[in-house]
Amino acid sequence: MAQPEKFSLILFSGDFDKAMAALTLANGAAGEGMEVTIFFTFWGMNLLRTKVIKRELFLENLFKWMMPLGVDRIGLSKMNFLGIGPWLMKKLIRQKDGQTAADLFKMAMDRNIRFIACEASLKLLGITKEELIPYKQLEIAGVDVFLKNAVQSKVAMFI
Amino acid sequence: MAQPEKFSLILFSGDFDKAMAALTLANGAAGEGMEVTIFFTFWGMNLLRTKVIKRELFLENLFKWMMPLGVDRIGLSKMNFLGIGPWLMKKLIRQKDGQTAADLFKMAMDRNIRFIACEASLKLLGITKEELIPYKQLEIAGVDVFLKNAVQSKVAMFI
Amino acid sequence: MAQPEKFSLILFSGDFDKAMAALTLANGAAGEGMEVTIFFTFWGMNLLRTKVIKRELFLENLFKWMMPLGVDRIGLSKMNFLGIGPWLMKKLIRQKDGQTAADLFKMAMDRNIRFIACEASLKLLGITKEELIPYKQLEIAGVDVFLKNAVQSKVAMFI
Repeated sequence: MAQPEKFSLILFSGDFDKAMAALTLANGAAGEGMEVTIFFTFWGMNLLRTKVIKRELFLENLFKWMMPLGVDRIGLSKMNFLGIGPWLMKKLIRQKDGQTAADLFKMAMDRNIRFIACEASLKLLGITKEELIPYKQLEIAGVDVFLKNAVQSKVAMFI
Repeated sequence: MAQPEKFSLILFSGDFDKAMAALTLANGAAGEGMEVTIFFTFWGMNLLRTKVIKRELFLENLFKWMMPLGVDRIGLSKMNFLGIGPWLMKKLIRQKDGQTAADLFKMAMDRNIRFIACEASLKLLGITKEELIPYKQLEIAGVDVFLKNAVQSKVAMFI
Repeated sequence: MAQPEKFSLILFSGDFDKAMAALTLANGAAGEGMEVTIFFTFWGMNLLRTKVIKRELFLENLFKWMMPLGVDRIGLSKMNFLGIGPWLMKKLIRQKDGQTAADLFKMAMDRNIRFIACEASLKLLGITKEELIPYKQLEIAGVDVFLKNAVQSKVAMFI
């Protein structure tokens, strides 16, 4: 039997709209039998966060407190209008029976998409595994692990 | 005879500068004989829009009215300054006999680059084919069609 | 002996955080023996700039004066807060003994990563080679040179 083809994404952005695009691509590729990996780094890592454990360093806490927590709190890259944009977009998605970023995020986990939380981003901000979503396919690893996977992939994108 | 190599782009962004980059890459690849596809989604879809047909849903109309219409109305991702940035940049491009996003967009159509308008984006915003540019190589399709193409491509990028 | 695999990046963005991501990927790939090329275009070209030589055209000077000069002056894509964001982030990186964009940029040159400065961007803004960093692996070339390289690459990303 042939090995499944690989599809790799770096989700650098923590924007609602870009997360939707990334998750739509990832779910689509997984739905066609591809082996999908998403590397969550920088602002993208916010999608994996569920809570804040206070740290010693003031700057760690400042950044952790300022960054949105989880896929339901993230904003649009355009027309955010202090949060009104994403709120209206979610409303429109609901009216159309579409899927919001949160739905797509759940679907990605249902489809066993491999999540990698960027080790360097976590270290920098003092975020520990306990602050991230519980998901058996979530691992913490460095960019080298992602690169090995990307090189073997049919498609590798930076979002 | 060998099949032409494929080049795939997702144009997610609706920014003037990013559209210029995407269209420059696409035209360059087409110029070297590659088979080029651009998947226009989210804000990128605005490049394809020519007019607004009023819809029933208030939120559809709101988004359609707020989003720029066509390649000549889009703004810069940086230093936009309420539209002065792109205006100055176009002016500078003209002074240098260069090509603006609108010129590059036309060239892409002259080179028969395949345009796909993202079905889900159109549906969400209630945009119909009549509101898009008339272009025989424009089709409306889902992300699955794009993915099949991307997997066969030498290069696939997200912009 | 096998040819080294290629890794190609377009750095379109001139943001501190995106530059860090691009340089981390590039250094990682170079560290694993890949042949890495970065094509600096649009705002990304600001990383290569060291000084401003005054030009005749007013608009050239305006853009050159408004755009940040070099990797240490660039801002964050999010939470920039007029420069406080990147300053705090650099401070946090120093506290953690991590590497800032400037460190990663230097490392990329130490690893002999090939830099291409986008000819069209330079021409548009009237920037000459004398205004760019001195680096033997820096060349000025068009998108066609980049595309040829991207087509031969295992991974090609747009950042």
